[in-house]
Amino acid sequence: MSGFSDLGPLFDPRSVVLVGASERAASVGGRTLANIVDHSDFRGTLHLVNATRPEVRGLPCHRRVADLPSAPELAVIAVPAAGVMEALRECASIGVKVCVILTSGFGETGEEGRAAEAEMKALAQSTGMRLYGPNCPGVTNINKRLGFTFSPAFKDDLRPGPIGLATQGGGLGRNLMQAMERGAGFALWCSTGNEVDLQVADFIHYMAGAPDVRVIGTILEGIKDGPRFLAAARAAAEAGKPIVALKVGRSEYGMRAAASHTASLTGSAEVNSAAFRQMGIIEVDDVDELVDVASLLARGRPGRGARIAVFGSSGGACALAADMVGQAGIVLAEFAPETTAVLAEKLPSFAALGNPVDTTTVTLTNPAVIEETLAAVANDPAVSLVMLPMPLDYGPVSLTVAERMAAAQRLSPVPLVPVWMSERTGAAYRHFAEAGMVPIRSLRNAARAFRRFIDRGAWEAGTMPRGLGAGLPDGPTRTLSEAEGKAVLRAAGLAVPEGEIARSAAEAAEIASRLGLPVAVKIASADILHKSDIGGVALGLRTAEEAGAAFEAVARAARAHHPEARIDGVLVERMAPSGGQEVLLSVSRDPVLGQVMTCGLGGIHVELLRDLSRRLLPVDAAEAARMLRDLRGFPLLQGLRGAAPCDLEALCAAMAAISALVEARPGEFEEIEINPLRVGAAGEGAWALDAVVTLRG
Amino acid sequence: MSGFSDLGPLFDPRSVVLVGASERAASVGGRTLANIVDHSDFRGTLHLVNATRPEVRGLPCHRRVADLPSAPELAVIAVPAAGVMEALRECASIGVKVCVILTSGFGETGEEGRAAEAEMKALAQSTGMRLYGPNCPGVTNINKRLGFTFSPAFKDDLRPGPIGLATQGGGLGRNLMQAMERGAGFALWCSTGNEVDLQVADFIHYMAGAPDVRVIGTILEGIKDGPRFLAAARAAAEAGKPIVALKVGRSEYGMRAAASHTASLTGSAEVNSAAFRQMGIIEVDDVDELVDVASLLARGRPGRGARIAVFGSSGGACALAADMVGQAGIVLAEFAPETTAVLAEKLPSFAALGNPVDTTTVTLTNPAVIEETLAAVANDPAVSLVMLPMPLDYGPVSLTVAERMAAAQRLSPVPLVPVWMSERTGAAYRHFAEAGMVPIRSLRNAARAFRRFIDRGAWEAGTMPRGLGAGLPDGPTRTLSEAEGKAVLRAAGLAVPEGEIARSAAEAAEIASRLGLPVAVKIASADILHKSDIGGVALGLRTAEEAGAAFEAVARAARAHHPEARIDGVLVERMAPSGGQEVLLSVSRDPVLGQVMTCGLGGIHVELLRDLSRRLLPVDAAEAARMLRDLRGFPLLQGLRGAAPCDLEALCAAMAAISALVEARPGEFEEIEINPLRVGAAGEGAWALDAVVTLRG
Repeated sequence: MSGFSDLGPLFDPRSVVLVGASERAASVGGRTLANIVDHSDFRGTLHLVNATRPEVRGLPCHRRVADLPSAPELAVIAVPAAGVMEALRECASIGVKVCVILTSGFGETGEEGRAAEAEMKALAQSTGMRLYGPNCPGVTNINKRLGFTFSPAFKDDLRPGPIGLATQGGGLGRNLMQAMERGAGFALWCSTGNEVDLQVADFIHYMAGAPDVRVIGTILEGIKDGPRFLAAARAAAEAGKPIVALKVGRSEYGMRAAASHTASLTGSAEVNSAAFRQMGIIEVDDVDELVDVASLLARGRPGRGARIAVFGSSGGACALAADMVGQAGIVLAEFAPETTAVLAEKLPSFAALGNPVDTTTVTLTNPAVIEETLAAVANDPAVSLVMLPMPLDYGPVSLTVAERMAAAQRLSPVPLVPVWMSERTGAAYRHFAEAGMVPIRSLRNAARAFRRFIDRGAWEAGTMPRGLGAGLPDGPTRTLSEAEGKAVLRAAGLAVPEGEIARSAAEAAEIASRLGLPVAVKIASADILHKSDIGGVALGLRTAEEAGAAFEAVARAARAHHPEARIDGVLVERMAPSGGQEVLLSVSRDPVLGQVMTCGLGGIHVELLRDLSRRLLPVDAAEAARMLRDLRGFPLLQGLRGAAPCDLEALCAAMAAISALVEARPGEFEEIEINPLRVGAAGEGAWALDAVVTLRG
Repeated sequence: MSGFSDLGPLFDPRSVVLVGASERAASVGGRTLANIVDHSDFRGTLHLVNATRPEVRGLPCHRRVADLPSAPELAVIAVPAAGVMEALRECASIGVKVCVILTSGFGETGEEGRAAEAEMKALAQSTGMRLYGPNCPGVTNINKRLGFTFSPAFKDDLRPGPIGLATQGGGLGRNLMQAMERGAGFALWCSTGNEVDLQVADFIHYMAGAPDVRVIGTILEGIKDGPRFLAAARAAAEAGKPIVALKVGRSEYGMRAAASHTASLTGSAEVNSAAFRQMGIIEVDDVDELVDVASLLARGRPGRGARIAVFGSSGGACALAADMVGQAGIVLAEFAPETTAVLAEKLPSFAALGNPVDTTTVTLTNPAVIEETLAAVANDPAVSLVMLPMPLDYGPVSLTVAERMAAAQRLSPVPLVPVWMSERTGAAYRHFAEAGMVPIRSLRNAARAFRRFIDRGAWEAGTMPRGLGAGLPDGPTRTLSEAEGKAVLRAAGLAVPEGEIARSAAEAAEIASRLGLPVAVKIASADILHKSDIGGVALGLRTAEEAGAAFEAVARAARAHHPEARIDGVLVERMAPSGGQEVLLSVSRDPVLGQVMTCGLGGIHVELLRDLSRRLLPVDAAEAARMLRDLRGFPLLQGLRGAAPCDLEALCAAMAAISALVEARPGEFEEIEINPLRVGAAGEGAWALDAVVTLRG
C-alpha cells in the first residue's frame, strides 16, 4: 500500500481507455474526450468504450472494457454511478494499472454511496489496481499537456512550471491554477475527490520523485492516514522539495465546515502545525499565499545570511515596504562599498542609496539606470532576494520599468520579486508575469512570503527529524495510580522523589522518618485524579508526627469526596528541592498524526497564555531544546533578570527519556502527563512531582 | 490656526489663478492647465499668469499676479522654485485665500529649501492665506471633477464616491486611487507634500465637515502636530465619519525610512495605535486593507449582533471562508427558520443550508436561484453582512452569477461582499466593481476587514472619549525623591503606605514603633532610582531594633554605591498588606500625541511578555476598566482558578486619580511611574509601594 511509485501510468500513460466516451459535448464523457483529443498532446494509444455506439466523434468504440484487445495503463471512468463498479471490475480483470473515477454520486451522497466506495476499496486492495476518485476532476499534467479531465477550463490553464499541486477540493485547486495569470507555472494538478484509495499523500509522494516538480503545493481539509502523509512529506523533504500547505480547520468553524465538506477526520490544528514545522512543510494562511511562497521557492533558496534588499522609485512605498519587512522580522542587507559606489554613480544626488534604495522617479525618465543599479544590488554578496515595490500602474512608463527590471533579473541568480500593489494590472504587470517573476499582490503578503522563504532555508540547514508519527486507533485505556505511574517514569530514567505507600498513620510516620524529612503525603488512588482540589495532598511535613496526622487527613478527605474510589493507601514522598521552574510535560495521542509531546511552563503560561510547544515523537535532547526555545516564556528557564538559570540539560534529558520510553513500548501508552516537572537550578535536576500515566488495553 | 473650515476655496473654488501656465505639454504648468481646461468640469473664473507670453493655448495671460483685476479664491503655483516666494507674496497682497504650491525643490533638498519654507510659513501666519505644499501634486476633487494638479493620471481615476483621502506621499495616495479599478469611489484626494502650513490633520478636519465625504482614508508617515490631528479626528468622530489610517513606522526600519522620506517626527508606534483605538480611528496594515475597510464602512455599519453569513457555490471555498471568519473571532449568524425554509425550498437536497450556505454548483446551471436565496440570507434578521467567496473566474458563467448577486444586493440594505479569490479578473469581477460591491481580493483580507467593520460598530456604540492629547515640548525636568513623590500621590487620593523620613537609626526605630510594625526601610534620595538593586531597601522588619539596624545598612549601601548622591535620610514605611497582584502604572509623554497612561501586570507580564495597555489621557474609571480588559493577563486580576479577585474598583480609581492629577496641573508632570502598585483582594485597596515622579521645569 505504499502507493506512490506507481503513479506514472496516471500522469503519463502510454495507453488510455475512456469508459463512457460520449458525443454530447456537455456530458462528462464528452468533455473528457474533447480534452484528450482536442486540447492534449497525448501520443499514446486511446481506446474508447461506449455501451451503445460503435463510434464517437468518428473514433471507433468498444462496447465494454472486457472487449479491449490489450490492457491500457490508465482507465478514465466517465459512466453514470450505476455502471462504475462493473467497469472497474472489468478494468481489474484485464490488468489496467490505474483508474480515474470522474463520476460523482458516491460517499458524498449518503450510506449507499459509502457502501459502493467500500466495494471499490476492496477491489483495489485485492487486485493492486489503483483508484483515483471517485468524484474527482481527473488528471491535469501541464508539463506534458495531458488532460484526462472533464474540466472545460483545462485548455485555459496551461502554463507549465515546476510546482505540482495535490488538493482536496476542486474549486480551491482550480483557484491555484488561475494564478497562472500572474506567471505561476504548474507541472501537474490533481484534486483527490473521495480518496477511496489514492490520497493526497500518495500524490505528494509521487511528486517527491517526479523530476519536473520542484515544489509541491497542497490544500488539505483532513489527513486520512497520518503515517502515510508523514512518509510522503519525508520523501519530499529528502528530495529537497518544499511542500507548501494550506490546511483548512484552524478554527472551530473551519473544522466543522471541512468535516462536513470532505467527511475527513480532523485532528488538532496545533498538532498539525507542529508536525508541519517539524517536517519543514510550510503552512500558509490562504490560497494567494500558497502561490506566493511556492513560486518563490521554485526560484531559489536564501543564501547564508538571508538578507533582503528593497529597491523602488516611490519613497512612500519603499518606507512602507521597509516597515513590513521589519515587522516580519526580516533583516535588510548592508551593501558592500562596490554596490553603493554603483548607486552613487548612477542615481541622482537626492536618491536614497541605503537599503531601501529609493531611486526617485529618475528611473521613470531614464529607465536604463534601473538595469545597472538593480543588477548591482541583486549581485551584492549580502543580498538573497530583492523586493521591488510597484505602487502604481502608469501604463507604458511602468511597462518600460518592468522590462528593465526583467532584464536585470537575467543578470542575477537572486530572485527579484515585484510587489504589484495597484489594482490596475496592465502591460507592466503582464510583463512581470510573462517573465516568470510572479508579482506578489501586496507588501504585507510579500513580507510574509519572504519570511517563509527564509524560514525554509533555515530548516534545510538543520537536521532532518527521524521517522515521525505512529497513528494509533482508539481503544480501551487504564490509568495508573500516581505511585505506579512514577515507578514507570523512574524506570525510564526520570528523577522522581523517593516514596512509599503507607497503609496506616503509623506506617506513614515510619516511612517519613526513614526517607528523610520534610515529606509530602498524597492519597494513592488511580480513581482520584485531582488530588489537591479535594484536600488529598499535604506538603512540607516537617516531622513524623505531622506525616502521621496528614495520613488521616488525606484519607478522610478522599473518603468524603470519592466514597467509591479504590484507595491503595497514602503515598509518602520526600519533598523535592524547592525553587526552580515548574514545567508541564506530556505525551498524548493525536487521532491522525500519532503521539505528540507537549511542554509549557506551569501556572499562567499554560492556563492563561496557552504558551505551549509541541512535537511529534520522537524527541531527542536536541529537539527538546528547540521545543523549549519555541516558548515565549523560555527566558524564564534561562534565568530572567539575574535569576539562576534552570537545569536545561536535565529538562531536555527528561523529555528525551519520556520520548524513548514511549517509542520503546509501541502502542502501550495512551497518555503520560507530568505536572509539574520541577526544574531546579543548573545541576539540581528535573523532578517529576506528579504524574498521570494512562496505558492502552 | 484651526485651518479646516476654510478649505472650501481649495476644493471647490469659484475663481482660480494658475501661476506658471505653460504651452509645453510636459511641464508642470502645461499639465496642470490641461487638467483644468481639458479634463475638469470647472465652471468658475480661470486666470492665467505667464511672465513672458500674452496668451497660452489661446487663453489670455497676465504677466504677474499683481496684475489680476480681482483676487481669485485659489492660486495654483507652478512656477520654478526661484519664483515661488514672489508669487506667494503677490497672492497674499491681493487677497487670495489658498495657494497650492506644486513646485518642488524646497525642504526635501536641504538647508536652503528649509529656509524658504520658513518664509512661506511666516507669510501664511502673518496674512492668514493658507498654503498647501510645496512639493505636492495638487487638488483632486473627483465628485466635482476638478483637478488642480499636474498629474497626467488625473483623467484616468475619476470614479466618484464617498471616500475622502488625505495622504502623506503621492505614490501611495495614487495607489489608493487606482483601487477605483475594483469599484472603490473617492470624493477627493490630496497628498500633503511638505506641509509648510496645511497638514493631513487640516484636510481630515475639512472632510469631517464635507457633505460628500462619508469615510476618510489617510496614509501617515508622521504626525506633525498631535493636538491638531486629534482635534481633526474628534471632528470626524463627532460627524460619524470613520477614519481608516495606515501609519508607516511600526518597525525600526519603517520608522527610519519614514523619517528620512518626510522628515517627520515619529512618536511611539504603540502610543499611536492606542490613540487611534481611543478615537475610533481604524488602523490598517496595508494599502489594500485601507481600501477594503473604507469601502465597507462607506456601505454601512454592522447591526446589533454583528453576525455574518457566508454564501457560495464551492464547498472548499466556503469551508476556508468559515475558517478565516473563525480565526478572526467573528460570529456566524444562525438563520431564522424562514430563511432556512427558503433555502430548503430553492436549493438541492445535497446543498448545505446552514451557515456557510454551500449552494453547490446548482447556481451555475440555475442562476435564478441565487437571487432568491441570497436575498433571503441577507434579509435574515441576524445577518449584518454577507461574505461571497468566489474562488474562480469561469468567464460568462461567473458573470451571470455576479449579475444575480448584484441583483440580490438591490433587495437588501446589508452589504453583500464578494471575495474575488482568483488572479483572473474578467467580466464578473468588473461587474461587481461597477455595481459598487468592491470585491475584496482574498478571504484572509475579507475576514480582517469584517473584523474592523464590526469593531468600528462596537466603538460607535460606546461613549466618545473626552478631549485627548496635549503635546508638550521637550524641556528640563526634575525627579522627586520617593517620599516626595508619594506625598504628591497621597494628596491626589491614592493609597500610599504611611511613612516618615528618619535621619538616624534611633529615629527609624522610633518611627517604626509609632507607625506600627512590620515596616519597610528605604534610602531616601532623588538621585538613587534603582534602590533595591544596590541594597537600599529592607522589607518586612518586625521590630524597632530591626528597623534601626536596617537604617544603618541601607545608608551604608547608598554611600557605597552612590557616594555623590544627595541623601535626604531613610524612609520608614508601614508594610502594605501582602498578597494580591502587582501592577505597573505610569503616565509618560509622547513627543507627538501628549500624555499617555500605561499599565500592565508586574514581573514577566511587562518584562517578558510586553503585555501593556495604553491610553492617551484623560482616563476615567470606566476607561481604566477597559484598559485592564485589554491585557492578556486580565484574568489574573479577576482571580484565576479560584484565586481571590483583585480590588479592581480601587485599581481603576487609582488610575483615574493619576489621570485627574496630571490634568489638573497641565504641563507640570513629565512622568509618573508607580511600580509596583499592589492591588489587594476586593476591598483591600490598591497601594502605591514605590513611585518615581518627574516634574517639568
